[in-house]
Amino acid sequence: MNEHDDPHAHKHPAHVDGLSVVAVIGDGQLARMTQTAAIELGLSLRLLAGTDNSSAAQVTADVVVGDYTNLDDLLRAVDGATVVTFDHEHVPQEHLAVLASRGVNLQPGPGALKYAQNKLAMRTMLAEHGLPVPVFAEITGAHDAGAFWDLVQSRVCVKAASGGYDGKGVWFPGSKQEMIELVDRLLSDGVQVLAEEKITLTRELSAMVARRPSGETKVWPVVESVQEDGICTTAIAPAPGISDTLARTAQDIAVTIAGTLGVTGVMAVELFEFTAPDGTQRVSINELAMRPHNTGHWTQDGCVTSQFEQHIRAVADAPLGDTSPTADYTCMVNVLGADTDPEMGIKARVREVWKRFPEAKIHLYGKDWRPGRKLGHVTIAASDRSPKKLLADTRCAAGFLMHARWEDGYTTTG
Amino acid sequence: MNEHDDPHAHKHPAHVDGLSVVAVIGDGQLARMTQTAAIELGLSLRLLAGTDNSSAAQVTADVVVGDYTNLDDLLRAVDGATVVTFDHEHVPQEHLAVLASRGVNLQPGPGALKYAQNKLAMRTMLAEHGLPVPVFAEITGAHDAGAFWDLVQSRVCVKAASGGYDGKGVWFPGSKQEMIELVDRLLSDGVQVLAEEKITLTRELSAMVARRPSGETKVWPVVESVQEDGICTTAIAPAPGISDTLARTAQDIAVTIAGTLGVTGVMAVELFEFTAPDGTQRVSINELAMRPHNTGHWTQDGCVTSQFEQHIRAVADAPLGDTSPTADYTCMVNVLGADTDPEMGIKARVREVWKRFPEAKIHLYGKDWRPGRKLGHVTIAASDRSPKKLLADTRCAAGFLMHARWEDGYTTTG
Ligand SMILES: Nc1ncnc2c1ncn2[C@@H]1O[C@H](COP(=O)(O)OP(=O)(O)OP(=O)(O)O)[C@@H](O)[C@H]1O
Ligand SMILES: Nc1ncnc2c1ncn2[C@@H]1O[C@H](COP(=O)(O)OP(=O)(O)OP(=O)(O)O)[C@@H](O)[C@H]1O
Ligand SMILES: [Mg+2]
Ligand SMILES: [Mg+2]
Repeated sequence: MNEHDDPHAHKHPAHVDGLSVVAVIGDGQLARMTQTAAIELGLSLRLLAGTDNSSAAQVTADVVVGDYTNLDDLLRAVDGATVVTFDHEHVPQEHLAVLASRGVNLQPGPGALKYAQNKLAMRTMLAEHGLPVPVFAEITGAHDAGAFWDLVQSRVCVKAASGGYDGKGVWFPGSKQEMIELVDRLLSDGVQVLAEEKITLTRELSAMVARRPSGETKVWPVVESVQEDGICTTAIAPAPGISDTLARTAQDIAVTIAGTLGVTGVMAVELFEFTAPDGTQRVSINELAMRPHNTGHWTQDGCVTSQFEQHIRAVADAPLGDTSPTADYTCMVNVLGADTDPEMGIKARVREVWKRFPEAKIHLYGKDWRPGRKLGHVTIAASDRSPKKLLADTRCAAGFLMHARWEDGYTTTG
Repeated sequence: MNEHDDPHAHKHPAHVDGLSVVAVIGDGQLARMTQTAAIELGLSLRLLAGTDNSSAAQVTADVVVGDYTNLDDLLRAVDGATVVTFDHEHVPQEHLAVLASRGVNLQPGPGALKYAQNKLAMRTMLAEHGLPVPVFAEITGAHDAGAFWDLVQSRVCVKAASGGYDGKGVWFPGSKQEMIELVDRLLSDGVQVLAEEKITLTRELSAMVARRPSGETKVWPVVESVQEDGICTTAIAPAPGISDTLARTAQDIAVTIAGTLGVTGVMAVELFEFTAPDGTQRVSINELAMRPHNTGHWTQDGCVTSQFEQHIRAVADAPLGDTSPTADYTCMVNVLGADTDPEMGIKARVREVWKRFPEAKIHLYGKDWRPGRKLGHVTIAASDRSPKKLLADTRCAAGFLMHARWEDGYTTTG
């Protein structure tokens, strides 16, 4: 489908003749940051947004307000779009199938997306292709649960197969009994359940790749990510101290998955790094995200081509951009809503951070405060300090935005 | 004035509680690129735009459509704004005075802006402060014209004191007679005229600075710019081969002017580099732009803090960002509308450029083609090639976007 096929497509001044109309299903910070990349490319996104003041809708002129679980709303949003993409994995497969059957250009397509929507399908597919995944099994009752507990010698991680994010939908039961009770509860709630071996991690990595429908792929440097309470809070690129071999392995895994599953756009492969019995560092795949990803935010400020620009290029099947870093290390730390919103307003907090760190790039998503909510992130790209110092600085900056206090006790005197 | 002072201020979902509402008078590419910077900072601009499909209005949710020469339209646009700034110099001083008298927070203020609006006032003020400017004089009749012609030994440049841009309003008469006729015509059209010595340029430079109302300033590396037919077409930063002394001199001039005139926000000081009689390289001031400037576009892709982000920070009186470059050299070339619009569509041209130069950053302004119109620019930041090669590559990329042909004869074989 191209923008001239449908004479009934609604025209909007946001879209220049001759350029793609890129529709994004979703209205969060990923869509918002994709919009800034789009604007510089001469485009502007079409959004399907839940409300007109959501993070992305605030900054987009062509907004369809609606519900991504409602087929009619989806159809309104994709009307006249050159290509349709997503800022989350939650559009129901049955609706994707209808859109695809009507010739809507979905990137990534339903066939790939299902592996981002269902962790059991994903693990099964990756294992079939010989890719490294933790030992896993679907759990359909108490018997399975107990057997799996014994199989992995009590090192168990239980997951909801779909619908989880930010660690919601991931559990580490402390006993076989606890596991059985958890599984029973989930199953009776209609949740599909899988269990996997709880890996003793060295750290978590992320290998990001972009792939075009016509096949070209480009990888970014492998990132180290830190999760706290299941939420990604920190990413540093490249992963400090990673061997060339391991980095290459991680990138190859990402490229292989993208090609095997026919993924288009940007994909993040979340990886566990662990020490193998022979003492070497290895990786095992955690999960896949088929969209820009939190561990790729650093690319906005530390890379020739950001993940957001690359996603647009990739889904539009345009040649991909250079993914070289522009500094030795780039660190990104999320700004999460603190348990209590500090008395000092966000505007004043931003100023304090800029005063101390003129090199800090502050990104805010236009969201109201709520404890634990991702409200923004801070990035510092640097070639003048160690990764350790960079991490400390960036954490300090993000910490101040959250809590209005310097975690390292810094004070200005004078 | 702050955003909570006026309970009648119109609320718009684009503006998050507690953050600044930055209103921009103007709707061109400078406002558009300021909007992308604003979005990442958690803001969104309010615009006074001529039409809802102008370059910036396309990508902004809170748009007041109106005329910047109409006071009522200006008042509607600034209603409830924390700070008001500009993407051009053309708001009439009498309206600026009214806004200022009503307590509207204008940055830069009318007192500074008048020197960007009138080249005669600017030259007079700079000369009074002992800053280097070409020999100049106001021309009020044939007698003045003839005398000035003789004074500078026929090396004359005639300018309209106000209203010029992209070389419109600049003339180089070839004879005294031609000068007198030109001046007569301009004066009888009601144009205020100045004449200045036509400098034998080594090259043109641009020194950019940002200044906050409370006084902090930050400069960027000095840029070499190339004008063709009076239009800036190319900029490279830092200016290749510039001595530290000359660069420092240029930056000091910019800081001095900003402080002396009370400029706030970003200012570009356009400079002529020339060889003094003693053989040394010197600079003389051409003109001032009190806003983001074409010679600062390179900062989007080659600098820690872009001129657009810095402008927002400066006019909001927030601490300024680091202006370190992220590559050895960054080159920016404008994409101007060609005499005939090539048959190959812009989408296809973009793809060809990305295919050949994956490192090229393409910025398009959402404007329709018109010969000579600034439609976009291409930037390449690089540490892997000489400034000469970088210039050639960037020109080639921009040239393809304009003409759908490689100026260096490049062809893909295969
Ligand atoms: N098998 C495992 N072994 C050890 N830790 C695990 C395992 N599975 C998950 N975790 C931990 O839990 C975190 C969240 O798991 P997962 O990525 O599956 O959940 P999610 O809610 O989908 O997260 P996301 O926000 O990335 O979508 C992981 O980043 C990791 O820290
Ligand atoms: N005195 C001079 N001597 C030599 N060349 C000059 C002189 N004044 C102007 N020029 C040339 O003409 C160009 C345009 O002049 P100027 O910057 O004053 O005009 P403008 O129309 O205001 O341009 P802009 O688009 O920068 O606003 C300069 O960049 C320079 O190349
Ligand atoms: Mg995860
Ligand atoms: Mg000029």
